[in-house]
Amino acid sequence: MYLICSDLEGVFVPEVWINVADKTGISELRRTTRDEPDYDKLMRSRMTILDKHGLKLHDIQNVIAQILPLPGAIEFIEWVKERTQMIVVSDTFIQFADPLMKKLGRPTLFCHTLVMDETNRIIDYKLRQPDPKRKTVEALQGLKYQVIAMGDSYNDISMLKQADVGILFRPPQNVISDYPQFPVVTDYPELMEILCKYI
Amino acid sequence: MYLICSDLEGVFVPEVWINVADKTGISELRRTTRDEPDYDKLMRSRMTILDKHGLKLHDIQNVIAQILPLPGAIEFIEWVKERTQMIVVSDTFIQFADPLMKKLGRPTLFCHTLVMDETNRIIDYKLRQPDPKRKTVEALQGLKYQVIAMGDSYNDISMLKQADVGILFRPPQNVISDYPQFPVVTDYPELMEILCKYI
Repeated sequence: MYLICSDLEGVFVPEVWINVADKTGISELRRTTRDEPDYDKLMRSRMTILDKHGLKLHDIQNVIAQILPLPGAIEFIEWVKERTQMIVVSDTFIQFADPLMKKLGRPTLFCHTLVMDETNRIIDYKLRQPDPKRKTVEALQGLKYQVIAMGDSYNDISMLKQADVGILFRPPQNVISDYPQFPVVTDYPELMEILCKYI
Repeated sequence: MYLICSDLEGVFVPEVWINVADKTGISELRRTTRDEPDYDKLMRSRMTILDKHGLKLHDIQNVIAQILPLPGAIEFIEWVKERTQMIVVSDTFIQFADPLMKKLGRPTLFCHTLVMDETNRIIDYKLRQPDPKRKTVEALQGLKYQVIAMGDSYNDISMLKQADVGILFRPPQNVISDYPQFPVVTDYPELMEILCKYI
């Protein structure tokens, strides 16, 4: 039986940090895993930038509360859940994800945690484990599921490689060029057409 | 971070086979894992009984379509999903579970599959793997989650033992007597009180 592991940002909701960059006017915050494959380097630089501008967790949460799912995402997730199980596997943090997950009908989410000080300043982040997306696929395969993985960025590639079926959803050109082995899909109807072969 | 693995029947919905027994008047079908700890023995005997009475998959599905979640279950699941992630781990079959999962807001479900012949007669079942409930907890612990497991029957015990926290929900007296090490909870408010220590 096939189940689905899907990335969150870029697949079901817009990139959170790009929205934060736009709302705050801090263009340095526009960098994502699409641009910087080293996630720790990316996060440390984000925390430094936030500190420099005096931004705290609640400032970012206020921006996230205004983000809407991508058009069609809610209906797509409903469609998937009628056919099989889905786990959203994201490099976001539970403190950021919650209002987005609520809008998506709360599919199961595996992600990370932020650490704040007593003033609500983000002082650290806790990754659940190294290479968490690939390990989630491995764990589900250990439970005798076949896994279809979907994502758009460099941080999804090890998950797509580990999966029985890997699909790139709306990836940028550099990801397409670096990983030509994965099919590239640009809208939900096209994605549903591929998924129908398995679920 | 704690997440929850929960049994389905007896925790969120009534026992499916007991309902089938009541609706069909075949009292032999009332036996569940509460009575017969050997699941394969139980399932083989169920298939023999169904055959003897000429009952097919759609007959059982018609009964299942009329089953309602236990009072409070839908609200309890919503409450859990606002606080952490939950995976329902059941020894039921995807062909039986779907209408129940829809009523519960489709939490993620790990379960088994039935095999039918061309006349819709149930001829076999496919367990995803041996001891699937315990292995699900182990896999999640491998993803660096701490797991709270809840169930009511013998087939939940290895899951409760493997979990970081194990809770018996409305178990029969024989399960309580055999496994006195687990706390026994009889309603959702009491369960929420325990869960609040962790999530």
